[in-house]
Amino acid sequence: MAYINLEKDVPGIRSLALFRPDTGKELYKLAQVLLRDDSPLSQGERELIATFVSSKNECTFCTQSHAAAAGYLFHNDTQMIDLVLTDYQNAPISEKLKCLLSIAGKVQQDARLVGDEDVANARKHGANDRDIHDTVLIAATFCMFNRYVDGLATMTPADPVLYGQMGARMGEFGYIAPSPTI
Amino acid sequence: MAYINLEKDVPGIRSLALFRPDTGKELYKLAQVLLRDDSPLSQGERELIATFVSSKNECTFCTQSHAAAAGYLFHNDTQMIDLVLTDYQNAPISEKLKCLLSIAGKVQQDARLVGDEDVANARKHGANDRDIHDTVLIAATFCMFNRYVDGLATMTPADPVLYGQMGARMGEFGYIAPSPTI
Repeated sequence: MAYINLEKDVPGIRSLALFRPDTGKELYKLAQVLLRDDSPLSQGERELIATFVSSKNECTFCTQSHAAAAGYLFHNDTQMIDLVLTDYQNAPISEKLKCLLSIAGKVQQDARLVGDEDVANARKHGANDRDIHDTVLIAATFCMFNRYVDGLATMTPADPVLYGQMGARMGEFGYIAPSPTI
Repeated sequence: MAYINLEKDVPGIRSLALFRPDTGKELYKLAQVLLRDDSPLSQGERELIATFVSSKNECTFCTQSHAAAAGYLFHNDTQMIDLVLTDYQNAPISEKLKCLLSIAGKVQQDARLVGDEDVANARKHGANDRDIHDTVLIAATFCMFNRYVDGLATMTPADPVLYGQMGARMGEFGYIAPSPTI
């Protein structure tokens, strides 16, 4: 049961965007620019970073929904996505992405843990300034979304079918703030 | 020394908004709506919550700059602001704000720590849904800004005079994304 009066049966961040549409609008625009607009990282890679950080924060709603978006963008390769969450060093992803996930993990924990060596290692595997910037900002942004969703105890569906539908919508149409139904 | 190529002599979040203006624009708009537009919390109270969370995350740039903005909005009552950061239960602030700072502190640590009792306590002292919502979102948002600024090792000025100037600008004009100087 959420701590504030949110629209019934609307899960996670969507219920919060309906509760306060002016901040909701800005948050959805940020997600759209960061996860869908131009970046040297593919949309799928960016969803993987978002999922990875949400998983570290143990935010079930964000982990499940962004894992589903990553699944949509990676042709339902759920085995790869599961491995990214449990043992990314052995996942079938690029060495560059492994280095970026390592940076994202440090940002999630305490951003001051990121060091010259982490950045040098990422560059050695082909990361440029924008890869590093976008990784840090995605990780930081999901530390926000995860806390916003869980700090107000928003509704977290249990049904995997619902997450599949969300992931397909996020993968296909991106991040569009919900409109009030009335 | 920042991990990516940022404009020289531009500190903290401003250097990042110049590096990637499209995300910078959205981040400044979020800060403006959240910290300056309508809320049952005064602009000064919102800056105190932002400063408190930044201090818990030990982000020097955000702590110093938002403490300076709070100082501007609270007529330079630096003694009160210092006490909010070190011992808020004994600071000369409302009981409602003390309850909200307690919630903000839990969001900073792990948002799942916020419980029914914290929310009931805040309501007992006059907090409504919007107070609680805005507190959680401000705390979550500063967990993002702090990580973004420190995860990329942006420039953190040491000179308190500079923070005083920033605080006065933030207090007087709000959050306006910087324009490229060239």
